[in-house]
Amino acid sequence: MRIITTVAEARALPHARPRVLVPTMGALHKAHGELIRVAREWGGADGEVAVSIFVNPLQFEPGSDYEQYPRVEKTDGEFCQKAGIDLLFRPTPGEMYASDRSVFVDESSLSNTLEGKSRPGHFRGVCTVVAKLFNILAPDAALFGEKDFQQLTVVRRMVRDLNFNIEIVAVPTVREEDGLACSSRNQYLNSEERKQATVLHRALLAVANAGKKSARDVIALAREVIGEAPLAVIDYVELIDAETLQPVEIVTPNSVLALAVFFGKTRLIDNIRLG
Amino acid sequence: MRIITTVAEARALPHARPRVLVPTMGALHKAHGELIRVAREWGGADGEVAVSIFVNPLQFEPGSDYEQYPRVEKTDGEFCQKAGIDLLFRPTPGEMYASDRSVFVDESSLSNTLEGKSRPGHFRGVCTVVAKLFNILAPDAALFGEKDFQQLTVVRRMVRDLNFNIEIVAVPTVREEDGLACSSRNQYLNSEERKQATVLHRALLAVANAGKKSARDVIALAREVIGEAPLAVIDYVELIDAETLQPVEIVTPNSVLALAVFFGKTRLIDNIRLG
Repeated sequence: MRIITTVAEARALPHARPRVLVPTMGALHKAHGELIRVAREWGGADGEVAVSIFVNPLQFEPGSDYEQYPRVEKTDGEFCQKAGIDLLFRPTPGEMYASDRSVFVDESSLSNTLEGKSRPGHFRGVCTVVAKLFNILAPDAALFGEKDFQQLTVVRRMVRDLNFNIEIVAVPTVREEDGLACSSRNQYLNSEERKQATVLHRALLAVANAGKKSARDVIALAREVIGEAPLAVIDYVELIDAETLQPVEIVTPNSVLALAVFFGKTRLIDNIRLG
Repeated sequence: MRIITTVAEARALPHARPRVLVPTMGALHKAHGELIRVAREWGGADGEVAVSIFVNPLQFEPGSDYEQYPRVEKTDGEFCQKAGIDLLFRPTPGEMYASDRSVFVDESSLSNTLEGKSRPGHFRGVCTVVAKLFNILAPDAALFGEKDFQQLTVVRRMVRDLNFNIEIVAVPTVREEDGLACSSRNQYLNSEERKQATVLHRALLAVANAGKKSARDVIALAREVIGEAPLAVIDYVELIDAETLQPVEIVTPNSVLALAVFFGKTRLIDNIRLG
């Protein structure tokens, strides 16, 4: 495994093999392991799996957990080594952003709902850093988890609209044994919060199994199940179209139920495809 | 010379040689010829010179000359053939922009003065289309004329901030024999306007030769000379720093005098480095 920290080092790398990028913010866990596994599969025998670790200040809205976000360089390095990746790109904020930076990539439609609504500036940060990573590492494919469904959709739109010659591969959400979607933020939860957080997946499954058709009924049922966890504070529960991310009234084969819920200070997201 | 019109064709091109891009909006004239000459020089014996012709709707602010902008496919094709380019990329608006496009590249500092101030949305359009052309054609270098000094500076900033692995080459302004900067828009001028438009270069030279130091004196002198042309209507005359494009009070070796002046409905720009 080769570790690089600068754009200049990335430029100097030989690039004859298909390169597959797994962009992360570190604090790696088993969902990242799954992304790496799929990346290896995508690249084939000749493929080169690259992981980037960068806690991107630009995608943390003011007042959020940028300072607190877990940074565990040593264990992340060991994780990558064990996972058998080829390249680890671990830049500093100063390497990524000039103090007088002034160019950003903006998405103006898909970003207006869900996370984009709750976290102003978040997707500008995501699009800008992903565009930078694409230009720095020039991958042939990049993998994103379906847990961050809106992020996946926004990145796909960016690739289409800016003509990046990169295939975006979606990887199904990886869950703990009790159903909680894996997330670096799960470690913020205390033991009671952690126990109650399983309600999110239960709510999604309850909706998927109930077969209700109207957004009102679907959302009411999800809220009812989530309400069984006394510590849960709902940010949003929305039924949306998977392409436009706009709210829909009726469940179709293209509908996604997406939610964001606080447990204490920790905000968790999850989603499921319905219909 | 190979002519392509789609992104898919561009992707399918072999790309083993250094590729140099000259992005244009067509209506090619001798300044484009000079850009192509410098591109050939930059690429060397093995280089591949690509010209794109695309009248980019996104960079025309509402009410400007998008519909009227000259489109002369046949003579442009002959021009490129004669100039000995290797690749002509000539997409349609529909090929470049999906009807539900929603991702844009924005520059938020350098764009606030001069052209950006007079033409809201212009540099969003420029940055977005240039980013797209960069991703579609993957050039090793791209050439921009110094007449569009702010555009050159904004594109350089975009390359820096988004980490495009592309060298931006500036080509000095090419002028007609009487000093008027070559521009596709010069053909809009009637013969009296065309005669009077030479005042722009005379004003720039007068300032350069006078050796004045304060912005106030420099701008006053330029306005005085331009005022000798009865048809000239000044949009702006500004003394700016070449890096930040912000107005400066005193001429330094890094100062640029930039101007935009209407003759009838035709808006012309020009600039000169001072100090």
